[in-house]
Amino acid sequence: MRILIANVNTTEAMTDAIAEAARAVASPGTEIIGLTPDFGAESCEGNFESYLAAIAVMDKVVRFEGEYDAVIQAGYGEHGREGLQELLTVPVVDITEAAASTAMFLGRSYSVVTTLDRTVPLIEDRLILGGLHDRCASVRSSGMSVLELESDPERAVEAIAAEAQKAVEIDRAEVIVLGCGGMAELKDRVVELCGVPVVDGVQAAVQVAESLVRLGLTTSKVRTYASPRPKRVTGFPATAR
Amino acid sequence: MRILIANVNTTEAMTDAIAEAARAVASPGTEIIGLTPDFGAESCEGNFESYLAAIAVMDKVVRFEGEYDAVIQAGYGEHGREGLQELLTVPVVDITEAAASTAMFLGRSYSVVTTLDRTVPLIEDRLILGGLHDRCASVRSSGMSVLELESDPERAVEAIAAEAQKAVEIDRAEVIVLGCGGMAELKDRVVELCGVPVVDGVQAAVQVAESLVRLGLTTSKVRTYASPRPKRVTGFPATAR
Amino acid sequence: MRILIANVNTTEAMTDAIAEAARAVASPGTEIIGLTPDFGAESCEGNFESYLAAIAVMDKVVRFEGEYDAVIQAGYGEHGREGLQELLTVPVVDITEAAASTAMFLGRSYSVVTTLDRTVPLIEDRLILGGLHDRCASVRSSGMSVLELESDPERAVEAIAAEAQKAVEIDRAEVIVLGCGGMAELKDRVVELCGVPVVDGVQAAVQVAESLVRLGLTTSKVRTYASPRPKRVTGFPATAR
Amino acid sequence: MRILIANVNTTEAMTDAIAEAARAVASPGTEIIGLTPDFGAESCEGNFESYLAAIAVMDKVVRFEGEYDAVIQAGYGEHGREGLQELLTVPVVDITEAAASTAMFLGRSYSVVTTLDRTVPLIEDRLILGGLHDRCASVRSSGMSVLELESDPERAVEAIAAEAQKAVEIDRAEVIVLGCGGMAELKDRVVELCGVPVVDGVQAAVQVAESLVRLGLTTSKVRTYASPRPKRVTGFPATAR
Amino acid sequence: MRILIANVNTTEAMTDAIAEAARAVASPGTEIIGLTPDFGAESCEGNFESYLAAIAVMDKVVRFEGEYDAVIQAGYGEHGREGLQELLTVPVVDITEAAASTAMFLGRSYSVVTTLDRTVPLIEDRLILGGLHDRCASVRSSGMSVLELESDPERAVEAIAAEAQKAVEIDRAEVIVLGCGGMAELKDRVVELCGVPVVDGVQAAVQVAESLVRLGLTTSKVRTYASPRPKRVTGFPATAR
Amino acid sequence: MRILIANVNTTEAMTDAIAEAARAVASPGTEIIGLTPDFGAESCEGNFESYLAAIAVMDKVVRFEGEYDAVIQAGYGEHGREGLQELLTVPVVDITEAAASTAMFLGRSYSVVTTLDRTVPLIEDRLILGGLHDRCASVRSSGMSVLELESDPERAVEAIAAEAQKAVEIDRAEVIVLGCGGMAELKDRVVELCGVPVVDGVQAAVQVAESLVRLGLTTSKVRTYASPRPKRVTGFPATAR
Repeated sequence: MRILIANVNTTEAMTDAIAEAARAVASPGTEIIGLTPDFGAESCEGNFESYLAAIAVMDKVVRFEGEYDAVIQAGYGEHGREGLQELLTVPVVDITEAAASTAMFLGRSYSVVTTLDRTVPLIEDRLILGGLHDRCASVRSSGMSVLELESDPERAVEAIAAEAQKAVEIDRAEVIVLGCGGMAELKDRVVELCGVPVVDGVQAAVQVAESLVRLGLTTSKVRTYASPRPKRVTGFPATAR
Repeated sequence: MRILIANVNTTEAMTDAIAEAARAVASPGTEIIGLTPDFGAESCEGNFESYLAAIAVMDKVVRFEGEYDAVIQAGYGEHGREGLQELLTVPVVDITEAAASTAMFLGRSYSVVTTLDRTVPLIEDRLILGGLHDRCASVRSSGMSVLELESDPERAVEAIAAEAQKAVEIDRAEVIVLGCGGMAELKDRVVELCGVPVVDGVQAAVQVAESLVRLGLTTSKVRTYASPRPKRVTGFPATAR
Repeated sequence: MRILIANVNTTEAMTDAIAEAARAVASPGTEIIGLTPDFGAESCEGNFESYLAAIAVMDKVVRFEGEYDAVIQAGYGEHGREGLQELLTVPVVDITEAAASTAMFLGRSYSVVTTLDRTVPLIEDRLILGGLHDRCASVRSSGMSVLELESDPERAVEAIAAEAQKAVEIDRAEVIVLGCGGMAELKDRVVELCGVPVVDGVQAAVQVAESLVRLGLTTSKVRTYASPRPKRVTGFPATAR
Repeated sequence: MRILIANVNTTEAMTDAIAEAARAVASPGTEIIGLTPDFGAESCEGNFESYLAAIAVMDKVVRFEGEYDAVIQAGYGEHGREGLQELLTVPVVDITEAAASTAMFLGRSYSVVTTLDRTVPLIEDRLILGGLHDRCASVRSSGMSVLELESDPERAVEAIAAEAQKAVEIDRAEVIVLGCGGMAELKDRVVELCGVPVVDGVQAAVQVAESLVRLGLTTSKVRTYASPRPKRVTGFPATAR
Repeated sequence: MRILIANVNTTEAMTDAIAEAARAVASPGTEIIGLTPDFGAESCEGNFESYLAAIAVMDKVVRFEGEYDAVIQAGYGEHGREGLQELLTVPVVDITEAAASTAMFLGRSYSVVTTLDRTVPLIEDRLILGGLHDRCASVRSSGMSVLELESDPERAVEAIAAEAQKAVEIDRAEVIVLGCGGMAELKDRVVELCGVPVVDGVQAAVQVAESLVRLGLTTSKVRTYASPRPKRVTGFPATAR
Repeated sequence: MRILIANVNTTEAMTDAIAEAARAVASPGTEIIGLTPDFGAESCEGNFESYLAAIAVMDKVVRFEGEYDAVIQAGYGEHGREGLQELLTVPVVDITEAAASTAMFLGRSYSVVTTLDRTVPLIEDRLILGGLHDRCASVRSSGMSVLELESDPERAVEAIAAEAQKAVEIDRAEVIVLGCGGMAELKDRVVELCGVPVVDGVQAAVQVAESLVRLGLTTSKVRTYASPRPKRVTGFPATAR
């Protein structure tokens, strides 16, 4: 099967890292294709950038030429999943939701640890609307931006691992969801510090997407995610303008 | 003061009707300026169209030249309000939220009556995230599209009024919020049939916007609605491409 | 238009301060009339005093001779609003609810900062029943009584501002509602310390009341707030005994 | 032990019926004393009347001369229990809460069946604030007033029993709480029609009150129900004026 | 009347202590019979042991020869109450639920203080399913096992009392439920330290059981707790194998 | 990998059907081993039978000789999953939870359609504790027992499909979870009637189990599902007595 995995920002290097992480857990026979939006922010850290990403991802996906069996939207707490579900019939999997859903099979409660404080509300909203918030112990942030993560990875690992530890000890989380990507050593450090399972959203989403495809399940078209009604729409795909 | 009121679809006639409704209740000295997005759907009835509207409205607002004191987003259950709040410092008022908030001062519970069934979930989600859902008795749809509303207004009035009546009698609503615009006779018919207060979102939003401006209150910039961080963003404003 | 604003305690000086605060934000042409109950406690800090205030306020309002367009009940977390709604047809606005409702347009969550710890539960209950609690980050108290507020205003300002700061930093509030009246410097100090919008209940309530009157909206009489059925009632108005 | 049971309305005959029902299940050695408020409505069917009853009941109880071990407030969905708890140290039991609490030991969910539609919201609010609403399947009304109950008891029994049956069959209630007093045949008819346990609030409250007294438990005075602070209060007890 | 009180573990000494505590508050004429399961764990501290206890208690109760009027299951946060309700018609009272239900008559919120951290989730789940969690301020653990409680009672008392104090001061509990048995001095120490009512589950359950029996109320058999349908069952009673 | 799938009842034919359904969707290289409890009920339709099944399944699993990578408990709304999680380190997947979790990726809300009315509460409880209930539109029953399902399959299919249709049309479900096994034609009929995705719990659970194993994720042992503490336990494994 073929799965499209869409980055929500315009940084190609991140798309590559995401696709690589996806491939690492994909089944033999599953092809992973990374997509980078043609416009938007170099990193998504707020509602404006996330709304722009929503359209940019839809834009990129609908213009994709070729067959595919599922789409993964690879951003934490981002807008847009519902729009993709309307435009497509194949399953659409949001990594925030896949991670939470997976974590709930492993412990009674989970916490998400993310980068900037300002992205916490977006992740919470996504979990609330996704019906996955009841067993969320907390969404914590390390206070570091994506950029700082790259410029000082060691400090970033410690900052995030420290928040994970607080989540386990203070918020009583039993599983940690890493709400940011790209650091192999991060996962190891959190496991070492906290002694709890750590879920990576991209990898969880690949499993969910493959599972839905294997079961022949597709998005319900009966109401919320019905195809858009025929009407005059301009400016979409945006890049076609 | 000057208030921008942004239609979420590209139909100029609707923008005019909305602005007119707003002016009908604006205080002397308040200037209402209607904005029509430069791209998007001719009517918003689902997530894809709503996400597109979110960006189109932000696009139109940020390119507006001149001063203004508040912005109203005039769509029921639409995405985007949080993005505008990040981009601006003046208050941003969503009509779905303004209507619900107003209705709650008038009765113990309210129902929203809207057009198509598929827009019900969007309205519910907006109310849930807005923290205004606890006293929502129901969101009901007449099953008629915006277009049908225009082509057969008499039948539309009866269909919507009938749902309002069910909301009052079955769902125990004490106030009705009209989740669609443009029909003066609709409000009268619902009042006649149901004997309960009827709230129009646009008019409620004008009052809320004026109130916030008068009190000198602006959007909190401390976390969720902080201005976007400086970074490379492409494709926005979209119409500048 | 004419708005009655009823103090919940018997201290005339507070009524004056409340009416003055209301007038400061009322539109030209709006007359504000302050009412002091003829019986009850000199300050309301608990359920017994609040229940007594509920009756005392109704008593005072129904005996008011002359026309009026709306009534504001000026107490934080006090009982009685529903009773007034039954007795009257004009809108009745509770300042706790008006403040919360207003705060929700400005940030994702708000906290109320009040005086004594024992009034916290009353405010919480009012917000829960009002359907305005979902986005309430916390209700915090400074531990100072109304009397101490007056005798040592400087210390009071610092104590309340300190709680506001905790609300923003620990409870993640993005807006502060001041659950006590009468200190101009308090608002400034909180804004300075916390950098978030600060909402004053009396002023918010004036805006809500004016808005409802302008829109011609009145209390729903269909069920919860229907006029009392004709029956034998003694002891009310109490002051007529 | 001695238990005061306070009627919420001024109809002495109802006080007698309530006291008699209480005595029927009281333990040997428990003395039941019925109290009729000295002012208020002849029957309580709404917020205004209920707030008045709150003060009238407190007024009557605090003027009671003699010792007692507990107080029962005998009204469905009435205001005031929290005020009594502040004024007294002995346990205060509200019959709405006692009935719900008892019903929850007998089945997974319960419904309350009451008289007029307008009292439904008051009962719901009392259950919500009491933390007893999660397993409430519904609060249903027969549409008959207390007066009609007396003038046409046979029709009343059928109307209420019919609602109880709907509660069991439609709302999936497993226990019925009778939210109105005075009819022995009503309980039998509901049991016959529905085949579920039927809880009478007054009788449940007597058991709860006796239980608390036997265990030596009294109201917590640590915060919400602390005694009123010393201050100037006028007009209470009202009857002393 | 005769009440069976079933210990959930196999330690006879605990059964004796439980029965003694029950007898101390039982009414004259109430016979208390303690039951010790014939298999299971010597102390219940987790789901596996609790599920085993569920069956062991049912096993012991259904094999009891003789009449009885009610059954109490004496374990905090244990599984099984619903099964007993299906097998019996007499009332079944869980001490966790009886304690919470009783605490709610005494204060606005309560906390449970128990032994090991790992039993906290079981108690929370029981309260959630029992519909008694809304007013639960917290479930706190002292970190000491049942065994340590016995080997070093003085330290245990201090550890548990310290958690109770945190519950009152930090979590704002107004009543403490002791989620572990057997120490008379514990209750006194908590009252002394915290100044709030302290509820013992066994004693609360005796009162609830007696109350239900006096009112002639039995478990609803209409749906959830209907008797098991006739079918082939093996291995139960387990001890008969 | 090897997955144990445990039937909750003692009917071998059902175990075979479950294992066959599991194998139909298992990946190449996954071995499915069906387990039938050595004691318990021939079909599970209530709490008593379900508690017995909980122990019987644990009993069977812990006595299994050989390696395995995950365990699936194949019953709708059954007790016991938490106990297995304590006893094992490999992932444990409950089919009720796996089905709900999967359904939530396909539509905004889902309904479960099951056999007997009395099993509805068990399924609801499992979903509530599992944190998967927010988007559950309803749990509906056809009123037919497992036995009737087998003796009159055509009528059963129609009865269940009819409930599924009501779930979609009345309860607004967008996905149907089949809360009973063994009928291939049932799924087709529901799809035909309702036009929505239909999720089978066993098949969903196989996907979840395989996913967790592939990602190397195991149950969190930090608190709720920590291994039982060493202590004296008798009667388990039960079949060893």
